[in-house]
Amino acid sequence: MALKTLSAASAAALDKDLMSVGAFSLDQLMELAGLSVSQAVYRVHPPSKGRRILVACGPGNNGGDGLVAARHLWHYGYKPTMYYPKQSSNELYQRLASQLKDLSIPFTTDFPAALKETDHILDAIFGFSFSGPVREPFSTVIQALSETKIPVTAVDAPSSWEIETGPPKEGPGAVYMPDVLVSLTAPKPLVSFFKGRHFVGGRFVSPVIAEKYDLDVPDYEGIDQVVEIGKDGKRL
Amino acid sequence: MALKTLSAASAAALDKDLMSVGAFSLDQLMELAGLSVSQAVYRVHPPSKGRRILVACGPGNNGGDGLVAARHLWHYGYKPTMYYPKQSSNELYQRLASQLKDLSIPFTTDFPAALKETDHILDAIFGFSFSGPVREPFSTVIQALSETKIPVTAVDAPSSWEIETGPPKEGPGAVYMPDVLVSLTAPKPLVSFFKGRHFVGGRFVSPVIAEKYDLDVPDYEGIDQVVEIGKDGKRL
Repeated sequence: MALKTLSAASAAALDKDLMSVGAFSLDQLMELAGLSVSQAVYRVHPPSKGRRILVACGPGNNGGDGLVAARHLWHYGYKPTMYYPKQSSNELYQRLASQLKDLSIPFTTDFPAALKETDHILDAIFGFSFSGPVREPFSTVIQALSETKIPVTAVDAPSSWEIETGPPKEGPGAVYMPDVLVSLTAPKPLVSFFKGRHFVGGRFVSPVIAEKYDLDVPDYEGIDQVVEIGKDGKRL
Repeated sequence: MALKTLSAASAAALDKDLMSVGAFSLDQLMELAGLSVSQAVYRVHPPSKGRRILVACGPGNNGGDGLVAARHLWHYGYKPTMYYPKQSSNELYQRLASQLKDLSIPFTTDFPAALKETDHILDAIFGFSFSGPVREPFSTVIQALSETKIPVTAVDAPSSWEIETGPPKEGPGAVYMPDVLVSLTAPKPLVSFFKGRHFVGGRFVSPVIAEKYDLDVPDYEGIDQVVEIGKDGKRL
């Protein structure tokens, strides 16, 4: 039996609950989410397979998770390059970007050129609050992601997929299939269309929240912030 | 050669730099510091050695690190009990405590009774901003910590030790020697008086900060947030 999934509306309500009743700050949650993502990348693509990683960040929370993940990846010995074309004026995202600049991590605006010089790609463009259509520059980026042979790890959702119904009927996302998906907090319904390796991260869900949203808290191992899930919904 | 140490004044200046030039929030830094501590506890005292852990928190940042560590330990399968007698009115600490209450983690005011029912102790009472004298209720607690046979892990400093000169000449701290010390960011000078297992945590120091404060960034392994250091200053 697959893990229970969380609709887009429930995921938004859960995040809100974590920050009100749960008393978490967005800083904290994003730090833990991005840390989960960095651990999944390390698992599927350790530095020995190539240190270069291109991190594509969207303008919202999904992009913020990518900014955090990139910092941790740098500390693990990776060489991230950031593609972050629509930088938010939000204070938190500005700080997260500043933390990367402090590590001399380069920012590029030329995605096709960066794609030629990377070993792995992190797709942190759109997450559970996505609703189409995809506009430039991201439609060109998703087109490139759908065509590249370089492995891609997607954060929470393959960007441009509909959260409930998966790949769009047309456009570049229709044939986009990342190699790895890291669901944050809980898988979204789109996971039933996903064919790669699947991880769940975000080890901060309390039993009260899990019960309220009818979630399965996955069986994390040891101190891991991420867990790989098989088709049967169990830890691999 | 031992790792370079960081004086109390430099540690305070470094924290300030991390939050200004470094653009980190205290939420973020405390989350990562507390996570480091939880990973060190897991390493020296895995749940198979006993799940009960008594977490003693002081009123300041050291106590905040303890609050964060306790939450992660709960998620790893430990059963924490909190001793947090001087709760700060600071909004961040209140949120961190609330996150523990959301997990139904008990808070006690009776330290001697709690000491009889635990397998491990986390000393998160005083950190690098400590300057004596120790007042009640903490002097009684440190007396108990100096006498107990239950293993103790101390956060950043054995509580009541002077940051520069180590154990005080008199009082309960004079004979207090925790089994494990987790130095955050960098060891403090007191480490030369410490005889137990020594870890360094806080994997967020940039080369710019390390150079400015003349620090050795320890050789973390893989995705670890903590590293055990031998007498030669190298990773064990």
